[in-house]
Amino acid sequence: MTGNKHIRISSEEIKLEFSRILISLGFNREKAEKLAWIFTLNSLDGIISHGVNRFPRFVKNVREGFIHPDAEPLLVHKAGNIEQWDGQLGPGPLNAAFATNRAMEIASEGSIGMVALAHTNHWMRGGTYGWQAAAKGYVILCWTNTCPNMPAWGAKDPRLGNNPLIIGIPYNDNAIVLDFAMSQYSYGKLERYLLENSRLPYPGGFDKNGELTNDPQLILNSWRILPTGYWKGSGLSLVLDILAAILSGGLSTHEIKTCADEKNLSQVFIAIKLSGLKNYPAIDETIGRIISDLLSSEPVNKDTKIRYPGQDILKIRETNLKEGISVSAEVWESILGL
Amino acid sequence: MTGNKHIRISSEEIKLEFSRILISLGFNREKAEKLAWIFTLNSLDGIISHGVNRFPRFVKNVREGFIHPDAEPLLVHKAGNIEQWDGQLGPGPLNAAFATNRAMEIASEGSIGMVALAHTNHWMRGGTYGWQAAAKGYVILCWTNTCPNMPAWGAKDPRLGNNPLIIGIPYNDNAIVLDFAMSQYSYGKLERYLLENSRLPYPGGFDKNGELTNDPQLILNSWRILPTGYWKGSGLSLVLDILAAILSGGLSTHEIKTCADEKNLSQVFIAIKLSGLKNYPAIDETIGRIISDLLSSEPVNKDTKIRYPGQDILKIRETNLKEGISVSAEVWESILGL
Repeated sequence: MTGNKHIRISSEEIKLEFSRILISLGFNREKAEKLAWIFTLNSLDGIISHGVNRFPRFVKNVREGFIHPDAEPLLVHKAGNIEQWDGQLGPGPLNAAFATNRAMEIASEGSIGMVALAHTNHWMRGGTYGWQAAAKGYVILCWTNTCPNMPAWGAKDPRLGNNPLIIGIPYNDNAIVLDFAMSQYSYGKLERYLLENSRLPYPGGFDKNGELTNDPQLILNSWRILPTGYWKGSGLSLVLDILAAILSGGLSTHEIKTCADEKNLSQVFIAIKLSGLKNYPAIDETIGRIISDLLSSEPVNKDTKIRYPGQDILKIRETNLKEGISVSAEVWESILGL
Repeated sequence: MTGNKHIRISSEEIKLEFSRILISLGFNREKAEKLAWIFTLNSLDGIISHGVNRFPRFVKNVREGFIHPDAEPLLVHKAGNIEQWDGQLGPGPLNAAFATNRAMEIASEGSIGMVALAHTNHWMRGGTYGWQAAAKGYVILCWTNTCPNMPAWGAKDPRLGNNPLIIGIPYNDNAIVLDFAMSQYSYGKLERYLLENSRLPYPGGFDKNGELTNDPQLILNSWRILPTGYWKGSGLSLVLDILAAILSGGLSTHEIKTCADEKNLSQVFIAIKLSGLKNYPAIDETIGRIISDLLSSEPVNKDTKIRYPGQDILKIRETNLKEGISVSAEVWESILGL
């Protein structure tokens, strides 16, 4: 899908190219640049599946009319420190970045703030909003529902979404960002293993006979991806979907219906301001001690590296900023033709 | 451990007996009855591991001085809709029930409220607080850290806790309550499988050679329990511990140190008021449609029942209320002697 020959393109060039295309699709300059930056940043951070590689599909969805370039989020209802917004089927990453920021604005006064967002579109990489909040000194818990792409535990047919949950925590000039989808492996990851002609390290779904397998092809054939932790990820996925739907007043996974055009999603963003807490001055030190204890774990073998969520992102970003982002030549060619 | 002969005892008798013992330990009548009710309710709901079976250990911890019968939670700091409380090493279930209620009080005005609780003790069954909040019409997200009882992904030695995350959602006169520990199986569950002389349905940890196994004895020997979803539960556990410690100003898992006397924990309670939302009148219907879609899944075989989290609790409670709670005769004997 993404070809084998890779070339390195500078992030500036990628962002410029994305902006050009987005403006040609009807986005105003400001929105085009913000969006282009999010797709570029995701690629810089090594999540190219939701960066360069996803951009052509985003463009297709705009052309098909699923994503409305001129839509603005609309405040529907305010109740205390909760706001319900309608994303009006605008671009998912802009809506999500807006909601993250708005939740922080509420929390800047009330210490905790929530934005529930209905009728939005795919936010691409959830971690983006974790980093965004952490950079401003806020903790964020946010999640999205998705199309039905995962069977419930004990079921054959996909009725749950893999509904990623993101938790972002500021840590010195860095962040700890957990980006936790409810399936053990994403479909994107299955495809990567398939391309590399390798098997999953652990079972990632069921084959058509209902047997657990680590053969990515058999799982892609059955569309029976495994919930993280079997019944556990299944339950958490359901509960996050219910919350997304009832808090936002938007659609739930079963109403989103198809994954062919995954649109009209519901999302929740809870921001927590740290600077008002009594122990605020000690927080970085507290986190430092927890991390240092974790990293002093005895590894299962000498080549194993124990990590915290998001640990390597800044290093990857720095390398990609310096050396350019490694992109499939074929994908880049197709983007230049958009 | 819990013997093989079981007898049925009425919930009234259990609660009375617990109250008597707690009063003899120095709890005032009101606290004794509240606590006795929580231990009884957990047993009524079928979670006897954190009800009748856990009560003797609770008594032991009070006698050892780990749990202070007369401690009251103390407000340390208030910042907007966040409150930081010190549990003063009081009984965990009373502190947690208090914090749940206080988070709801804050949310009753601000729609969302958070209580972070430092220096508390084991809350027993986390689901208790999900049911408590849901009964009053509030969503709750709460979690606790624990002693280090689980190795990080890639590590041999336990430095993470299995830190249960609870999400409670009101639903008609019922509730949807997810009680999600970060290990695939609890140590209690491993012991149950061992008692029944059976193997785990899925691998639940590593043996001493680092191989995944579903033999509960080998896992109990190695103390290398498996995080839910491998690296995923490991990351979520870490992040929940960091949040519990920095939001409450209390201890983190590595500072709790030993599981022999698991004390001085940190917890977070976020309550969300539903009645102020624009779509509030439609919420039960929305949840009903999601549940009904889930339950119409095609089961993997005709004997498989697909369930939502907490679905069977009310039925179990009703049966136990009618027929009495099935209790190990040996455990009951030991309680009568307390």
